[in-house]
Amino acid sequence: MMLIDGRPATAVSAFDRGLNYGDGLFETMRLHAGRVGLLARHLHRLRAGCERLDLPYPGDGVIESDLLKLTGGGAAQGVVRLVLTRGDGARGYAPPPAATGRRMLALGPLPPAAPASLSAGICLTRLGRSAALGGMKHLGRLEQVLAAAEVAAHGWDEGLMLDDTDRVVAATRHNLFFVRDGRVLTPPLEGCGVAGVMRGLILEALPAVSLAGGEAPLRYHELHEIDEMFLCNAVAGVRAVGRLAGRTLAQGDTLAALRGPLIEAGAAWLA
Amino acid sequence: MMLIDGRPATAVSAFDRGLNYGDGLFETMRLHAGRVGLLARHLHRLRAGCERLDLPYPGDGVIESDLLKLTGGGAAQGVVRLVLTRGDGARGYAPPPAATGRRMLALGPLPPAAPASLSAGICLTRLGRSAALGGMKHLGRLEQVLAAAEVAAHGWDEGLMLDDTDRVVAATRHNLFFVRDGRVLTPPLEGCGVAGVMRGLILEALPAVSLAGGEAPLRYHELHEIDEMFLCNAVAGVRAVGRLAGRTLAQGDTLAALRGPLIEAGAAWLA
Repeated sequence: MMLIDGRPATAVSAFDRGLNYGDGLFETMRLHAGRVGLLARHLHRLRAGCERLDLPYPGDGVIESDLLKLTGGGAAQGVVRLVLTRGDGARGYAPPPAATGRRMLALGPLPPAAPASLSAGICLTRLGRSAALGGMKHLGRLEQVLAAAEVAAHGWDEGLMLDDTDRVVAATRHNLFFVRDGRVLTPPLEGCGVAGVMRGLILEALPAVSLAGGEAPLRYHELHEIDEMFLCNAVAGVRAVGRLAGRTLAQGDTLAALRGPLIEAGAAWLA
Repeated sequence: MMLIDGRPATAVSAFDRGLNYGDGLFETMRLHAGRVGLLARHLHRLRAGCERLDLPYPGDGVIESDLLKLTGGGAAQGVVRLVLTRGDGARGYAPPPAATGRRMLALGPLPPAAPASLSAGICLTRLGRSAALGGMKHLGRLEQVLAAAEVAAHGWDEGLMLDDTDRVVAATRHNLFFVRDGRVLTPPLEGCGVAGVMRGLILEALPAVSLAGGEAPLRYHELHEIDEMFLCNAVAGVRAVGRLAGRTLAQGDTLAALRGPLIEAGAAWLA
């Protein structure tokens, strides 16, 4: 099911600036037990992105009302994709001064259950760096599309993406954490990658389980020095990487320790 | 008027991957005297981009047939925007194995006539660098959107964009050439910018008028050393920059010298 500006629809104006210029943002959210998980965090990120792009934000209330319509039919589990664009525009990059924006919400099924432990390779497609766009979940995902094609061609579960200085940034559809010398670390997102909602939740949860950690760069040539790796996003939750570029990775107790605080913070589907 | 997959339409599936992931390319072409100018060059670039992205290319014949329908009503002048996307897809970055693609062609009016000599400022929005996407006219134009908003806010005609190493790359909707020490130069496009059709035409035309030139980087702090600057794209043609960040720039005879070869090469609207 899909709602466009609050009404059931499956087609959109071909003049939409999201289509023509990538002029918009999106959120991918987990529906669990009939509720959208971590909704406040998703909306907070979306609103912050709208402020960076001067994109009209419809307001939490309007989105919540759409979500009620979308999920009111009784769906208990699924994935909600929320797209905000600047709406229609004539040809030309400059944003129309009176842009009203457009919102599209789609409810789809959960992805197939992932294995308990993922295999991951290293994608050749690099993440570019953009000071203007880094960290945002904007509509221009072509690098991820190319990398996901590599993942599919190799038959991996996921693929890690490097930036142009050989730093590991993220996987194609997950943020990543790694454990080194007892510390739980995630790459900083300087100009590339998406600042994931689940990534933020994990960073906040570390102190509750007395784990040291935070942001730290991870270079490609340091991959053999890490003890564990796990991937996260708001739909799948958190998954250990069991095989990384052919090497078997140990699975410590970091994930088990984090589960409680993450559930308590709102990721109920991890229970 | 707009054609989607060859039929008149103004709405498109909301599942289109161009909208959801920027998974597509576009060309902006000049209609002059009832013909699309430099069509072979546009289609060549488009096909090359499709090969890089493994995007279905519908074939020159299909596009030419669409163009006949689109312009057959007798329009003599205008702008044709041609968008190719990977077509519909379920949620997820990985390209559907059997993607058929979608083509959208829109005919619109010429933009308002630009002044003979443009004013240009320096945008604060930087162009990111992406090894995977550099040079291609893909649908993710959000950096240009942000920069174009700066141009509008300042009341400039155009704005130059720098990369993260302070190199001048292009203007928001034009490639740029500059004259220094008698040489006609354009920045190389290493990982950012669009390899414009008119830019290519000018580079090829230089020997015919015995002008030395080619690609050379231009750093922000070298801008005061240049003698002339001009901007180009396939719709506007070529325009001198008369004022650059408050400084008056001379207008030499480079543009006048180039006009003949460019017209001969197919840019008939420069006559």
